[in-house]
Amino acid sequence: MESLRTGSDPIFLGIVGVGVVGNAFLEQLGRIPNPPSLILLARSTQTISSPRPEYSPCVPFAVWDEAIKSPFLDRSDAWSPAEIADFLASAPGKAILVDNSSDLVLAQAYPEFLERGVSIVTPNKKGFSEDMAHFNHIFDSARRGNATVHHQCTVGGTLPVLSTLRDLIATGDQITRVEGVLSGTLSLLLGDFMPGHGTSEARWSSLVSHAREIGHTEPDPRDDLNGLDFARKLTIIARVIGMDVSRHDSFPVESLVPDELSRLPSSTAGVTEFMNELPRYDGMMEEAKKAAENQGKILRYTGSIDVFSGAIKVGLQFVERGSAIANLRGSQIVNIYTKRYGTNPLILQGGGGGGEITAMGIMADLLKAMELLM
Amino acid sequence: MESLRTGSDPIFLGIVGVGVVGNAFLEQLGRIPNPPSLILLARSTQTISSPRPEYSPCVPFAVWDEAIKSPFLDRSDAWSPAEIADFLASAPGKAILVDNSSDLVLAQAYPEFLERGVSIVTPNKKGFSEDMAHFNHIFDSARRGNATVHHQCTVGGTLPVLSTLRDLIATGDQITRVEGVLSGTLSLLLGDFMPGHGTSEARWSSLVSHAREIGHTEPDPRDDLNGLDFARKLTIIARVIGMDVSRHDSFPVESLVPDELSRLPSSTAGVTEFMNELPRYDGMMEEAKKAAENQGKILRYTGSIDVFSGAIKVGLQFVERGSAIANLRGSQIVNIYTKRYGTNPLILQGGGGGGEITAMGIMADLLKAMELLM
Repeated sequence: MESLRTGSDPIFLGIVGVGVVGNAFLEQLGRIPNPPSLILLARSTQTISSPRPEYSPCVPFAVWDEAIKSPFLDRSDAWSPAEIADFLASAPGKAILVDNSSDLVLAQAYPEFLERGVSIVTPNKKGFSEDMAHFNHIFDSARRGNATVHHQCTVGGTLPVLSTLRDLIATGDQITRVEGVLSGTLSLLLGDFMPGHGTSEARWSSLVSHAREIGHTEPDPRDDLNGLDFARKLTIIARVIGMDVSRHDSFPVESLVPDELSRLPSSTAGVTEFMNELPRYDGMMEEAKKAAENQGKILRYTGSIDVFSGAIKVGLQFVERGSAIANLRGSQIVNIYTKRYGTNPLILQGGGGGGEITAMGIMADLLKAMELLM
Repeated sequence: MESLRTGSDPIFLGIVGVGVVGNAFLEQLGRIPNPPSLILLARSTQTISSPRPEYSPCVPFAVWDEAIKSPFLDRSDAWSPAEIADFLASAPGKAILVDNSSDLVLAQAYPEFLERGVSIVTPNKKGFSEDMAHFNHIFDSARRGNATVHHQCTVGGTLPVLSTLRDLIATGDQITRVEGVLSGTLSLLLGDFMPGHGTSEARWSSLVSHAREIGHTEPDPRDDLNGLDFARKLTIIARVIGMDVSRHDSFPVESLVPDELSRLPSSTAGVTEFMNELPRYDGMMEEAKKAAENQGKILRYTGSIDVFSGAIKVGLQFVERGSAIANLRGSQIVNIYTKRYGTNPLILQGGGGGGEITAMGIMADLLKAMELLM
């Protein structure tokens, strides 16, 4: 869209989640022209809100520690999703919930927001990758409530993956296959373990350990290595294409966490033990690397959706040298094959996440949601 | 956007241009749910329109030869842009002009449409790549007329190049550099002349001749080889980034048409003579290929924009083996470097144009324009 229409209705915003992404988002929000009125800012234990019934003054666009100081705002414990929905739906204008958390409970309440006309903008994958029935419920509720759902950032960081797929389908093309690498962490680890060019002698466990130290993995690296986050993204893509996927764990997902180590608790002690034990399993990844080498190929962790057969899978794969997937190191990539495009796929590729980049993707979605409400 | 809001205002559509792209577009239009009311269909010599003042019945979504048969519609000679603008602006509802032509005169009249509230959807590059003043006039007029301009397809076929750039900028990122290959024809020719992998003994002139025979070049291949169409696309990108580019030929554009042959007329006889003479110049391309080979690189025809220095150029370049640009054959690619993305660019890559694919991109833009009007 190239020319923002100027609307007159005020737009009210509630934000849940003030972690790295949430704070980067707040910071960006303060710099856009004509920002919406922020009336609620919440984290898992506390809520700041504009006083009712005026819904004024607004919450300042500041990090949590600053915003909480404002003397004219209401402060309370955590609100339930129903309380947040009621607060936003009762605002004197159109309202949008930006869910920057990864909270399943809040995601399960999306239909409640949408039915009451509150639009949703979120990078939270949970609502779209658990039960198929809930996924459908979300979009049915949006239609009934005349609200919108923008969740581009649930897949591929800021790459326009979902919007491109929706454009292709809306204009009558048929998606035949989607394949790619949808985990920046696994892209980086495999790219270092077996570079597309040159060689590496690094042991798998050392790479995981190093990536964790520099903040390129989840606090518990098993959350990256088990492939489930990747599988959630693939589930969302498949559903947007129109496939019926009962759950994000209802298809083959190859975990890079050895069975024995997956049973360790997710406590700090459990994670430490996992990191200590991981070197004992280096041989498994070494074997996979050699097997790829023997075929003249490159070892990668990829996902694929075959639309006709309905087959979806996530796991290690040997890919051709020189291919875009073989050349990855840290970037995510999605290859979209369609009837109209033929054998030349549409490719979207870009650097992983990070707070600022993810926040930027959420902001782009928010701007689109606002434009539709104005 | 994930949930189309249902609006009640009718949307009226006028389409100019019924060539390969225009007819593919008409065919797709008939298959979308809740299509707009087509009230005008025009080509360079004839116009079909719904009778005033009812603006009813509508023009059927059929190829020109079918649509012209409808007995209830008005038929006349070509209308001037001003007459078309008046007809659309007077329709009893919001109106959109889809310009599927490559007509400069119509493009120069866009401000007239927009001032009167008629939105524009178009793959026509002319209005956006000639004078900078006209480019600004288009968007100023859109603001004044509360209308929208969607021209994603002027760059990169159906790749979401412009929307991605606009999202990056709207959310506060800084574009630092854009580079890529924005001509499917030159991508194909160079990919065959010097493949990224393996070798080719094919002569340049034979490749041009073959590509022309199978319809992969403009009727006069010089329109591809002179780089000006590519330069128009780069101009549009630079302007969307916010750069001041006086014209599409105000920066260095390396033509692959030998000087002597560029002076031949564009008549059928001129084109035939061009094709006959081209083999005499094969040595020039052969030398460039050898020079790239000697540096261990790949010869490609690329464009680049350096935002800080303001340097824009289009021409032959030696690129690294194994890079995405080196591996191209027929696909277009755009690498976007930004402050937030750092050294890992955002990459958009996809198969070239073709009537169906271009029409699909125009349709995606039309759906967005309609959504904003509903």
